[in-house]
Amino acid sequence: MMGPEVPKNHPRYESLITREKLIEGMHQKIVAEAGLIAHGRGEAFDYILGEVTPAFALNQEKLAVITLLMAKDPVISVNGNVAVLCSREIVQLSQILNAPLEINLFYRRPEREIAINDVLTKAGAQQIYGIDPRNLESIPEISHQRRIVDSRGIARSDCVFVPLEDGDRAMALRNLGKDVIAVDLNPLSRTSLAATVSITNNITRAITEMVNFAKKFSKMNIQELEKEKEQFNNETLLQEALKFMSSRLEELASDQIYS
Amino acid sequence: MMGPEVPKNHPRYESLITREKLIEGMHQKIVAEAGLIAHGRGEAFDYILGEVTPAFALNQEKLAVITLLMAKDPVISVNGNVAVLCSREIVQLSQILNAPLEINLFYRRPEREIAINDVLTKAGAQQIYGIDPRNLESIPEISHQRRIVDSRGIARSDCVFVPLEDGDRAMALRNLGKDVIAVDLNPLSRTSLAATVSITNNITRAITEMVNFAKKFSKMNIQELEKEKEQFNNETLLQEALKFMSSRLEELASDQIYS
Repeated sequence: MMGPEVPKNHPRYESLITREKLIEGMHQKIVAEAGLIAHGRGEAFDYILGEVTPAFALNQEKLAVITLLMAKDPVISVNGNVAVLCSREIVQLSQILNAPLEINLFYRRPEREIAINDVLTKAGAQQIYGIDPRNLESIPEISHQRRIVDSRGIARSDCVFVPLEDGDRAMALRNLGKDVIAVDLNPLSRTSLAATVSITNNITRAITEMVNFAKKFSKMNIQELEKEKEQFNNETLLQEALKFMSSRLEELASDQIYS
Repeated sequence: MMGPEVPKNHPRYESLITREKLIEGMHQKIVAEAGLIAHGRGEAFDYILGEVTPAFALNQEKLAVITLLMAKDPVISVNGNVAVLCSREIVQLSQILNAPLEINLFYRRPEREIAINDVLTKAGAQQIYGIDPRNLESIPEISHQRRIVDSRGIARSDCVFVPLEDGDRAMALRNLGKDVIAVDLNPLSRTSLAATVSITNNITRAITEMVNFAKKFSKMNIQELEKEKEQFNNETLLQEALKFMSSRLEELASDQIYS
């Protein structure tokens, strides 16, 4: 391994340790190389958020959980970064929502699929879609390897939860008439703009919070869920996200930090 | 190699190709794994800038070039990302400014030093500091491997240009009484706050523009340089950078993009 020297007194020690986790995940073939770059983009936007969950994001997460609970066949799409950062929580969410997990990768490689499958199994997953070739089919609307989906999962699903999605597929899934729920720290990304419900938050915090909302909302009946859902609007929440980030920068600029 | 499938019709094709360059650089041992994550952070802030150089950044670059030209012993510190993204331009800048190049890495490994040395040599570098053990010494104020510097370079320099620096060393170099010039797309990073001159811009654009400014300013005498320099203030320019990013987000939020 690389054996880097991260000094304990480094002011961004925590952040460096999370990075090490992803780098280690890459060496273990779980995380794609481009997944490291994607994590960096997230870090930057999370930095602007202040590395805590803002109020609008909690509402986005509530809307997401309600939408998943009201779906007929919800599915949770998992990639390498999700597996490394929050496998236990995503398995928990899958169980509460009764939404199967499907491994679906931008950079599809058998060794990566197997590695992710192992991580999810260790985290308690009972059944994992997306790797048995007998059940795979291709969505022609998607131009790269993410077109390969499970007949029992994404192919037939009416609502796909795709934390850390690429914009291309988010739009293709929408065009196929499916609801898409995405976690993306960039409120202006094509994924955020295409999704039915966008969550502008750090994936680790978001999934943990969604597990708690799922526990609460899964006890409600359809009428109660409908009533909860009426309180939230995806477009309005995305606008709030952008405005929040904008004013955070403004605030930080006037904080006399350069004095 | 990884052989990913980047479709030409992907709306972020250019951005994906740059990513591929860095990933390829990692496989060639030039770029550190953490360098991919750092690139991702930069991508996010550059996205907010609009992926073009704003007016304030041109002024930051002018101030940087003037400061380097007025220094007694300027040095340019090079890491893996710089080598992969703009080796030709950094060699050109080194020649115009008469500032030697020094390889200085957060994750120091002989194979990486050799690979970067090769890239710089191919790009036309005549002499590269930072790798001959007979000339290396240690700065105790820096706690990790970046403390190892060249006696002929950073150790004796009064002005270090460190594109893509970490905050830890930027502060240590400042504490040693040296001027530090940094390129960092996050105007709030410890590096940006610690540097004598901070450039809030994409490294590739910044270095190309600095080469042009260096050609122009290197013809001026010290009085003319002093007069030019008086027009710029690092703190003011950093504030401008933050305000620019803040209003870009505000503007994008009101662009009805979600309609």
